[in-house]
Amino acid sequence: MMKSVTSTPVARPDEVRRHNRTTLLRLLHVSGPSTRATLATSLGLNRSTIKTLVDGLAEAGVVEERVPRPGRGAGRPSLLVLPQPHAAVVLAVDLQVEHVAIALVGFGGQILGRNSWNLRGRMREADEVITHVIESTTVLAGDLGVQPIAAGVSVPGVVRRADGHVHEAPNLRWTDVALGERLGGVLRIPILVGNDAELGAIAEHLRGAARGSSDAVYVSADVGVGGGIIADGSALRGGSGYVGEIGHMAIRPGGRPCYCGSSGCWETEVGEAALCRALDLPEDTPRGAILFELRELGRDPHAAEERLSEFAEWLTLGLVNVVNLLGPQLVVLGDLLTVLPDSVVKSVAAEVRRRSLVSRAVGGTQIVSSALGADVKLLGAAEAAFEMILDTV
Amino acid sequence: MMKSVTSTPVARPDEVRRHNRTTLLRLLHVSGPSTRATLATSLGLNRSTIKTLVDGLAEAGVVEERVPRPGRGAGRPSLLVLPQPHAAVVLAVDLQVEHVAIALVGFGGQILGRNSWNLRGRMREADEVITHVIESTTVLAGDLGVQPIAAGVSVPGVVRRADGHVHEAPNLRWTDVALGERLGGVLRIPILVGNDAELGAIAEHLRGAARGSSDAVYVSADVGVGGGIIADGSALRGGSGYVGEIGHMAIRPGGRPCYCGSSGCWETEVGEAALCRALDLPEDTPRGAILFELRELGRDPHAAEERLSEFAEWLTLGLVNVVNLLGPQLVVLGDLLTVLPDSVVKSVAAEVRRRSLVSRAVGGTQIVSSALGADVKLLGAAEAAFEMILDTV
Repeated sequence: MMKSVTSTPVARPDEVRRHNRTTLLRLLHVSGPSTRATLATSLGLNRSTIKTLVDGLAEAGVVEERVPRPGRGAGRPSLLVLPQPHAAVVLAVDLQVEHVAIALVGFGGQILGRNSWNLRGRMREADEVITHVIESTTVLAGDLGVQPIAAGVSVPGVVRRADGHVHEAPNLRWTDVALGERLGGVLRIPILVGNDAELGAIAEHLRGAARGSSDAVYVSADVGVGGGIIADGSALRGGSGYVGEIGHMAIRPGGRPCYCGSSGCWETEVGEAALCRALDLPEDTPRGAILFELRELGRDPHAAEERLSEFAEWLTLGLVNVVNLLGPQLVVLGDLLTVLPDSVVKSVAAEVRRRSLVSRAVGGTQIVSSALGADVKLLGAAEAAFEMILDTV
Repeated sequence: MMKSVTSTPVARPDEVRRHNRTTLLRLLHVSGPSTRATLATSLGLNRSTIKTLVDGLAEAGVVEERVPRPGRGAGRPSLLVLPQPHAAVVLAVDLQVEHVAIALVGFGGQILGRNSWNLRGRMREADEVITHVIESTTVLAGDLGVQPIAAGVSVPGVVRRADGHVHEAPNLRWTDVALGERLGGVLRIPILVGNDAELGAIAEHLRGAARGSSDAVYVSADVGVGGGIIADGSALRGGSGYVGEIGHMAIRPGGRPCYCGSSGCWETEVGEAALCRALDLPEDTPRGAILFELRELGRDPHAAEERLSEFAEWLTLGLVNVVNLLGPQLVVLGDLLTVLPDSVVKSVAAEVRRRSLVSRAVGGTQIVSSALGADVKLLGAAEAAFEMILDTV
């Protein structure tokens, strides 16, 4: 969302060069190989400034320059600048309720290697998870012959950004875990621990369905329901470093009790358990079976709309609230919601536009499914890690 | 709320000086008379830079410098820098459902003069309002011997910031009024038209209860209910320049129909009509009588809590949602909500903290009443106008 009446920090001339370099690194990292000419245009810098910056990066081994394949245009082609993945490698950790995935991700966003394992019983305890993440990282880094210089960790819970303190991750049954401190203490690199939906939003914004949209909301519906907000091109976080919890909007007064202490939270009506109820499946149905059932249902749009009508109504109500409160251009549905039959998503989107005053004013908020698949939070964790260190590459 | 993964615009050295000057003007405007030493500390600039800047402003007649009254400290006292109200005057217009207030506000925030009139019947039509605002401004400016150089207009409706287009102001029965264009065309100054709750939030942030709080939500409950969001120190606006509409959260599924096309909106449960119902007053009770009744009720805290218990429950539910979505440090209750008995506000605040996962995480969101009284939106409109022109003063 746009901002006004800001008090911008004071820029000092000696910071300009470093700032330009970081902006260039960020652009290369997100957009991939680009010609010098494109870089100059995108950043609004002149060609000699770009040349100086790119030469510096090439010398440091952060990029390589290559003559592009001859195109149709006349004249000497602009050199292609390629980010070098091994120039900066980060660790990404996606901690989910049922399993953990880790990946080592190179400059430019390429996944260089990955590993994952299931969480059951004692394996879900914080001590076990932390130990296992550290061990797997060491093995993976050794195999690949790289060393991560920062880490991003996605957690399905309420997390304080400043120090990676997990206040509450209810579906993991974690309370007050100093996750950032404990991982950082062993790995000895900067660690950013983020809420999973926030990191999902960052990934969608930089590399997914919300690319190019400055104001978007990402809704993740897994066991729990969360949301990440992109406002005016960056992720929004609450005053004390905690991101909001969209899943705990009170959407149904007097509704089902929620673990959070309230009742009728959105999560109780559009989370995994609610989806199981809508599909007449037991609430502990394995994920695979839920996905199968949803895909089957999608073959008959009419039946799908009918069977999911109550689920869709709660989804609509919550989305109307999100759109009315924040006025995003775009809402990206993630996780389980990506498997909802198209006909259902379309009718929810139409209904949100019809009922939301703000959606009507902005000319109709778009509602789309995530395009990043199961890796969305892993990619978001990687981006959060890169954000910490891109200025030092 | 804090922001991350930003792509900051590139700062050019030649912009730094102008930037420092604007930052200094903003500080003087909001904080009032300050010593050079305080200014230097607040802005992180050295004393010689401050001296150059202040000398420039003094020469232009924007500030005056004065030797402060002798203090306890030893040594030569730092010169006191005083903003000169007549150096820059803006027009503020607060368009409400029942009346319009205008004011001419000087640099430093002082109201130099004001006028207001009631809106009844035909007077509420856009043509009439626009004509009357222009006439009154001309008279007031003539009386005071000043000329406004920008204007801010507060409108209770859905407004597009870019051009001041009023998409919908339902309680005024306005639809698609090119208010910014029409006022600007005659007054020939830059006009900013804002949503009333957004401007209220800006005023509370700069001069009211949310001063010093980087993340706050202002809730205005008048005929309609609105909200303004301060995130990371500035006002948040939706992607297409429309601010959100907190009053249209769907809080009560299947509840009362709302003019917006939805039903069970928060506004239908905590707006003026709902308050009248809670107080057993007819829904068209004049404002004065509602205020009287509320103040009377406040004398007996126990009776107040009992009589307003349902109203308080809906207020709580909506506030839990706002806090869970945005994680503000502070919520400021405005308009009619400022007159709620203290005991009711206290129990609502306690209940929000109890039920909101995010409030518990941030250590308890504060909920307070507005301290700016009836002028809050007028002051917000003035600040929005100053924001447009402070860099040209």
